[in-house]
Amino acid sequence: MMKHISDLKVNADRLRNAWEKMATIGATPAGGVHRLALSDEDKAARDIFVAWLEDIHLEVTVDDMGNIFGKRSGKNNTLPPVLSGSHLDSAPKGGRFDGALGVLGTLEVLRTLTEKNVVTERPIIIVNWTNEEGCRFHPAMAGSGVWAGRLDKKTIYNQTDSRGKRFFDELKRIGYNGAVAAKRFPLHAYFEYHIEQGPVLENSGKVIGVPRGIVGVLWKNVFLKGLANHAGTTPMQARSDALCAAAEMILNVNELPSRMGRGMVGTVGEIHNLPNAVNVIPDNVHFSVDLRCWEEDLVERAWEKLKAEFKEIAEKRKCALEIKESMNLSRSAFSKSLCDKIIDVSRKLGYPALEMVSGAGHDAAYLSDIAPTAMIFAPSIGGQSHVESENTKWEDCEAGTNVLLHCVLASAMEK
Amino acid sequence: MMKHISDLKVNADRLRNAWEKMATIGATPAGGVHRLALSDEDKAARDIFVAWLEDIHLEVTVDDMGNIFGKRSGKNNTLPPVLSGSHLDSAPKGGRFDGALGVLGTLEVLRTLTEKNVVTERPIIIVNWTNEEGCRFHPAMAGSGVWAGRLDKKTIYNQTDSRGKRFFDELKRIGYNGAVAAKRFPLHAYFEYHIEQGPVLENSGKVIGVPRGIVGVLWKNVFLKGLANHAGTTPMQARSDALCAAAEMILNVNELPSRMGRGMVGTVGEIHNLPNAVNVIPDNVHFSVDLRCWEEDLVERAWEKLKAEFKEIAEKRKCALEIKESMNLSRSAFSKSLCDKIIDVSRKLGYPALEMVSGAGHDAAYLSDIAPTAMIFAPSIGGQSHVESENTKWEDCEAGTNVLLHCVLASAMEK
Repeated sequence: MMKHISDLKVNADRLRNAWEKMATIGATPAGGVHRLALSDEDKAARDIFVAWLEDIHLEVTVDDMGNIFGKRSGKNNTLPPVLSGSHLDSAPKGGRFDGALGVLGTLEVLRTLTEKNVVTERPIIIVNWTNEEGCRFHPAMAGSGVWAGRLDKKTIYNQTDSRGKRFFDELKRIGYNGAVAAKRFPLHAYFEYHIEQGPVLENSGKVIGVPRGIVGVLWKNVFLKGLANHAGTTPMQARSDALCAAAEMILNVNELPSRMGRGMVGTVGEIHNLPNAVNVIPDNVHFSVDLRCWEEDLVERAWEKLKAEFKEIAEKRKCALEIKESMNLSRSAFSKSLCDKIIDVSRKLGYPALEMVSGAGHDAAYLSDIAPTAMIFAPSIGGQSHVESENTKWEDCEAGTNVLLHCVLASAMEK
Repeated sequence: MMKHISDLKVNADRLRNAWEKMATIGATPAGGVHRLALSDEDKAARDIFVAWLEDIHLEVTVDDMGNIFGKRSGKNNTLPPVLSGSHLDSAPKGGRFDGALGVLGTLEVLRTLTEKNVVTERPIIIVNWTNEEGCRFHPAMAGSGVWAGRLDKKTIYNQTDSRGKRFFDELKRIGYNGAVAAKRFPLHAYFEYHIEQGPVLENSGKVIGVPRGIVGVLWKNVFLKGLANHAGTTPMQARSDALCAAAEMILNVNELPSRMGRGMVGTVGEIHNLPNAVNVIPDNVHFSVDLRCWEEDLVERAWEKLKAEFKEIAEKRKCALEIKESMNLSRSAFSKSLCDKIIDVSRKLGYPALEMVSGAGHDAAYLSDIAPTAMIFAPSIGGQSHVESENTKWEDCEAGTNVLLHCVLASAMEK
């Protein structure tokens, strides 16, 4: 029998069992998961998640973006609830922790509270946001973005994947186009527990990461149109080679951070080349640009520089250039008082905590606009993420979940 | 009634009808054809081709590489025959003329001879070679290469396409794994009629191209292995970005010809990037290199230079580098006397001819090793080839087919 609520601990074995079960859905041979948004694997993950919510008698709601909420009542259900969760979709051949840890950590928090008959002042709601990754359907964080009023639902519905499947059709197909409109409701606080996905925590030797916010993120899609022609018979000077133009641009993206400084990162992760035959000069290339920085004016300035360079390269290579923005998120500053609470709880539980910044985007970015928001990070081994080898020590997963428990509990106890 | 054999002309309308019918098989909306080797479209093209051969009572043989031969007997069938043809497969979203013109031009020659009851001294054989393009299954010119004894049949059989389908299984599936072993037989001459696929003829204003040979061709596959990681959380200096390494290499391939000179061309046509997600640093990139030059020592020297640069780039970018050769063809010199015959026939028919070099590989390359070989080129409008907009004036197609007729006829009349 628990003597005092401050002695409450999550059940690490139960957490691990749920996590291991989830990791079988979309499991890849190399130990990762491939659970793209609105795929059959995403449906299977949602189905088991909803069953788990119903097991502990949560009131389950699915909205018309497929966001899944499970509500545990408090003493006073007219008070804005505490929300906590993350996402169950993964990057292509991604890791087992990204997203799932925060959803299942919150599930374990609610299972613990239910098991111990803890009655909170406010309701607590667990959430699984739809399409956080944005890899199959752009943009990322679509479920929380629409819910928060920052993204347009119709636009998201009409997004198509690389095989031409529409977001809305896939959402309906897997049975998660709920009746309730995806729309923000008043919150007392939002917590998101997540792996760091970078090397900072591990290098510091600390166990709990407390990001003061998320860097600004800019995503662009670059389209180049050249002239396809025979690789053997077309003189070099007569070519409009779209892949060569792309290659120059990719290197410019890669070199930009060293020119701009201040922790900026720039990545080309995706490229599509047509007709993609060994003996044909490529005429259609599309690639992505991802720029991030905590100092957000720098992202914009960096992009203006890049854009001017892209234009010069395209002109020199005789290619038509088109650029479309697919995401532009300002940096998100989290709630100072919630961050302080996480640091305080960590200290009380004996876990060394580190204040930092998140280089990865999270649903918490949209939430931070409309409610006091904070995140709890667990260390990523080798800083690896979005890959099959993504890993976190189990004792660290347990530590973070205990911090989440006491943060959610403290917030939910506030009158 | 034809007064003299030298007045013989092909039937341009009949040629065009056959060509138009063939162009419906694998037709693309933008006016090209997508008829990859051993696909359903290739099967449909072969089926109609065989039916056409049977219509004029040719003796049809299919060998175990799927090469299709149609023999028209001569007076003395113990004499080595004259062979003429090309290929019916296309590049991905390729053009309607590449390959098909030479096969159907030869068909029209045989239809004309049959219609006019012309009896030749030697047999004439029409051929459709399997997998000339090499886009679905590497290497190119597989059918003629095995037939000529220059490629290993077992190796070709085990080649797989991008979806893992084996060459042999696909050959069997479409019903063209013939009983006869693909093996060279004595030839009196080999003619291949083809579009130029480059801008040289059109720029010269001439109608018939007479290549003295085909440039040397080197194909390499380059594989880079870096470290996949999160695009937002991985510091720039901690990256092993395989796509950035590939981008540097692609530019080196593109710049190499201007450093080497003497008409060399270098192309990266194909690239595969994994995991190919906007927010993941790429860890697996594979791309192709295509180097060509008439002066073949230059190709080898250029490749040695490139390889050394690739090693440096891979090391600097912390990527593992693997290189595999998929084709290495020496230049092919054609028969001087057959080239002279083509020039002579063109002059007699009133078509201006141009001596040149072929930048594109052809089945004629393997044939030139074992028999007197020559090619007849028709001009490509805008030099465009391997693309849907590939085009040749109809009067030029007719001109080339008449030249082919009289070259084949003259050779087949030789005792």
